[in-house]
Formats: sequence, C-alpha cells, structure tokens
Amino acid sequence: MKLASLKGGRDGRLVVVSNDLAWYAPADAIASTLQAALDDWERCEPMLRAFAETLEHGGVPRERFHEHDAESPLPRAYQWADGSAYVNHVALVRQARGAEMPESFWTDPLMYQGGSDSFLGPRDPIPFADERWGLDLEAEVAVITGDVPQGASEQAALDAIRLVMLCNDVSLRSLIPGEIAKGFGFFQSKPASAFSPVAVSPDSLQGWRDGRLCGALEVELNGKPLGEADAGVDMTFGFGRLIAHAARTRKLGAGTIIGSGTVSNRGPDGGPGRPIADGGAGYSCLAELRTVETLQLGAPNTAFLKAGDIVRIEMRDERRRSIFGAIEQQVAGEQEAASR
Amino acid sequence: MKLASLKGGRDGRLVVVSNDLAWYAPADAIASTLQAALDDWERCEPMLRAFAETLEHGGVPRERFHEHDAESPLPRAYQWADGSAYVNHVALVRQARGAEMPESFWTDPLMYQGGSDSFLGPRDPIPFADERWGLDLEAEVAVITGDVPQGASEQAALDAIRLVMLCNDVSLRSLIPGEIAKGFGFFQSKPASAFSPVAVSPDSLQGWRDGRLCGALEVELNGKPLGEADAGVDMTFGFGRLIAHAARTRKLGAGTIIGSGTVSNRGPDGGPGRPIADGGAGYSCLAELRTVETLQLGAPNTAFLKAGDIVRIEMRDERRRSIFGAIEQQVAGEQEAASR
Repeated sequence: MKLASLKGGRDGRLVVVSNDLAWYAPADAIASTLQAALDDWERCEPMLRAFAETLEHGGVPRERFHEHDAESPLPRAYQWADGSAYVNHVALVRQARGAEMPESFWTDPLMYQGGSDSFLGPRDPIPFADERWGLDLEAEVAVITGDVPQGASEQAALDAIRLVMLCNDVSLRSLIPGEIAKGFGFFQSKPASAFSPVAVSPDSLQGWRDGRLCGALEVELNGKPLGEADAGVDMTFGFGRLIAHAARTRKLGAGTIIGSGTVSNRGPDGGPGRPIADGGAGYSCLAELRTVETLQLGAPNTAFLKAGDIVRIEMRDERRRSIFGAIEQQVAGEQEAASR
Repeated sequence: MKLASLKGGRDGRLVVVSNDLAWYAPADAIASTLQAALDDWERCEPMLRAFAETLEHGGVPRERFHEHDAESPLPRAYQWADGSAYVNHVALVRQARGAEMPESFWTDPLMYQGGSDSFLGPRDPIPFADERWGLDLEAEVAVITGDVPQGASEQAALDAIRLVMLCNDVSLRSLIPGEIAKGFGFFQSKPASAFSPVAVSPDSLQGWRDGRLCGALEVELNGKPLGEADAGVDMTFGFGRLIAHAARTRKLGAGTIIGSGTVSNRGPDGGPGRPIADGGAGYSCLAELRTVETLQLGAPNTAFLKAGDIVRIEMRDERRRSIFGAIEQQVAGEQEAASR
C-alpha cells in the first residue's frame, strides 16, 4: 500500500497511490489526513488497503499522480526522532575532526529529537540559509509508527511500523559543533526536513528485512551521482531497536517518525567508502565526503550546498521503478527566501 | 481569555473558561480543538474572545469547570522546545557537579527540542519510572505561539505569543549526564511533560511584562511548599528572545510551545536561593535543592521523586485566585504503570 498527502491545508489531503506511482485516488472518505488515519489505524488500515487494491485494478475513479503535488506524507508531525544507525558514518566524521568515538556508540543508539512542526515538501526549495552555516543534505530512511507503549520490545516496536519513507534531513553543519558543545543537542543546526512523496507499508517493500530497508539509496547533486549506498548494509541498529530505544522511558504517539540517520556503507576494506566515480557506493551527505577528503587530502575539497544547487534522493526496485518517488529540492536563493 | 481542552479523543475538546475558573462553555462551534483554533487564529481569536466575554457575563449556557477534567491545553503538539532562561539555575547545577559554565550561557540561550507527541494531563499520574532514573519535577512557564517566520525579531516573536501556561517538565536526572555525554541532547531523560489545566492570553495576565510572567510560582511536594520563586525575576532571556532563538534558522508552526526552563531565583546575596522554611524562595525542582545541599553539606539530602509522591504547581493572582489552575500529579506505582 502506498499513501501520499496532496498539497492543501496544513496537513494535506490523504490519497492512495498506485504501485507504479502513476495514479492516485482521494481517500478522504476513509480519513481526511494521514495523521487521522494513523490515529485510528485499526479501523482505517483495512479500508485503505482495500481501496488501494481497487485502485490498482482501475476499479475507482483515478487521477494522474504528480510527485510535485505532494507534501511530505506527514506535512507536520507530533514527533520526529532521528537515529544515527549507520555508526560507520559517525565514526568517520569523528575521526576526521580528531574526536574519539566512545565504544558504546556501537551498542547504544544515538538519537536526537528533531523539530516536526512543519516539514518541507519533497519538491519544495530548501529555504535560503547563510552560506556560512554549512548547508548539507542527509539522505535517510524513515518510518512512521503507530502507538508504541513505554518499554516496548524490539519485536513490538517492529510491529508498530506503519509506513516507510525516504528523508532529506537538512543540516547546518557549521552550527553543529557549537550546539553539541552546549550539551542540549541540535536545534538551530537542524531546520525542517523533507520526506519522499509517497509512504509505503512495509509489506509492500521487497527490500524490507529485519527492520531494515535493503536497496541502493540514490543521491544526486546537480544531476551527478553522489551516493548509492545500500540502506540495508552497515545499519548497526534496525528500526525495531531504534523505536525501542525511543520508547524506553515514554510511550510514543501514533504518527511518530523515526529516522535512520545518514545512510553510509564502509568501503570493501572496512575503511571509508569510495566515491561513485571510483567504483564505490559514494556518500549520502556532503559531510561524509568532506570527511573522506580530509582523511585523504588533509582538507575538504567539496563545498557545502549553495543557492541553486539541486539535491535528489530516490530508491528504485529491481525493475528500476521509483518506490517512494523522488525528493528533489533546489536550494533557494536569498531573493526567493525574502519573497516567502 | 482563558481556554482549556476537556478530556476526549487525542486532542481534547476546546472550551472557554471563566476568569475565576468556575465555569466553562464548549467552543466546538468556533474550533473543535485548540490546535484547530491556533491554525486559524485570525478568524477564531475574535470569536473566542467574544464568547469568553459572554461567558463571563453568564450570557451562554455554562457548566462547572473541574480542573481534573482537563487535558493539557494542547494534549499533543507539533513542537515543544524548552529553554533554560533562568541561567542562575544552570550555573548552580554545574557548580555542584564541578563543571564549568561557559560565559556565553549568559548571552546565548540554551534550548532543547522536547518530545510533544503525547503530554500528560495536569492531573494525570506521572508514569512509573525506575527509581534509579532520578525522577524530578521542573516547574516552568510556557507559551504557545502562532506561526513565526524564520528570522523573526524579538518583538515579532513576542507578538506571536498566543497563550501562556504553566508546565511540569518531568525529567529523569540520572539519565541526563549520559545523554549529554553522547552529544545529541536529551531524549530518554525527558519523558512526557504536563501543562496547567488552563491557558491564558497574555493580555489577561496582570503579571505579563516584557515577555516575562511576574508572580510567585508555587511548587508543593506532598503538601509542603518547595518553591515560590518569582517567574519574572532572574529570567535572563524573556520569551521574545527564546522564540527568536528557536526561529533563527527555521520558521515555527502555529501551536509551537516554548518553555522557560526551571524557574529559579538567586538568594538576596546573589548566591543560591534558600529553602522556604528559611525565608527563601525555595526551589522549582529537586535537582536545584539537591545542588544547594551538595554545595552546603557536601552531598544531597533530598531524594528524587518516588511512587506515591504528589507534586503541585500553581500561580495565584493578588487575590490568591488560581490563574491557570493547578498541575497536581502523583507519581504512579509499578502496579498502576502495569495496568495502563
């Protein structure tokens, strides 16, 4: 089952989308918004599934689905918590700045509470940021949960996963060290994230295994491949573990979004991954590329994002069909920002 | 204008409440939930104000308002960001654990992103926590904002404040050092917070000045006064500054809750405040009391909260009438937790 929220109002309008992303049909009669469906999932899910099935067979009035008409599946959410499940990525970034990584990072998930009051749409521009802030993308996998009781087991947490999406966790790298030093976590360094046009139920994902999404996460910058790391590889903590971590001391409300953190694969020798041009899996954010450059050349070679840059994040199935639709965002210029 | 959300569904039912908290009238006809009113404030506010005025004069059918029927005004929210505006509190806590406090803390607000997916009601039990986690209350003032554009000035931020509440920011003290060391901020150490039964518009608050709420924040533990610090005193950063800080790199969606951090007054000599029994203003959390004990006696004397303890947080006007209603929460026992 594939669901999307078409633009309209603060929470969008819930639609079911065909598997090939070509068609949609409004699901208003079942639930007006995705959050409303998640709030009442036991009732809504069977109806949405049946409706999606009928759409698949052309049995309901349908319209062409255009990814640029979609909001993030939850245009705003009650919770967005982002893990750092690809510990390889964390280890690399620390190594480059000469900071030691505690051994516990391999066994105890890192997770931060993100802002969820208004996400960017998957084709919305990334608002202009001061270039000194070090604007970066982070390509991730994310899941939406139902209600999760406090102290849920990993298996219960896995069972609570309702939908899977891709994410661009926009980050302001130059603001991160200062915020980490303050000890209260990220705030200004994490502006609004964007999610893929379509959210997909785990059972419809061929690559879904043990709370991990196997498959190459394709990341492009200005039309050139930047990364194609396999999201199912080197994910130290699966989503079951991440959700259980989040729910250790409190229940999680339906519609909670949990992120994987930047997807990252090691190189074949266990060291940093190589660029795609060199036959490697590349990188899912600029910080990791800059880290590898720093380790190899002594200094980063690649600039952070600037106005006009275009970021694209997508995952395809075996037949090269887009699974979630593409996040494709241009960095806004100063003028665009002012006119909003 | 005073608003509340009576229990019912995930978002409660919006009502207007009389100034003396004795009466309410359902505001469903204007907006079904407080979030819906905030989403469409320009349209809803004048209607809610007129309705509240009519209620005040007994001109509409009204019912007795019982604080224990109320949810937190926003039973769940799209954003909860908590500052540490009483820098005195931060300085004390650091001093007790021998950690230096950067000078910048006096000029650059500390703020963390909190979980907002399901708050506790003002009379709900605090879910059982492992006693080793160091359960604590934190009595705070909090505001609910409308939409705030990115880069808003302090004045624009002040103008965006819609409602003011009290807050019990429940904290698990023993989990904090570990989470701070990980660098990603609080997550497991900050379970669900609770807010006062009633939210009040700033113009209805006699003590509202320069984005600060003047007046004694009364905190009781098991019926004994713990704190009565003046929330308008020693608040290094007013709410205008806190909101502008939050909005520096991203807009804030309507219904964003911003907290003051634990209210804390210095002693008359500029040092730590004294207990109420010694004629001081006391403390708004146990950690600060334990800190003072550590500084004076070498070790804390007071235990953190345990099952059965009752916490009460309230603020009164000059005539000793409750302004926001009381947060009054009992710490649940293990059995109660299991039966939920």
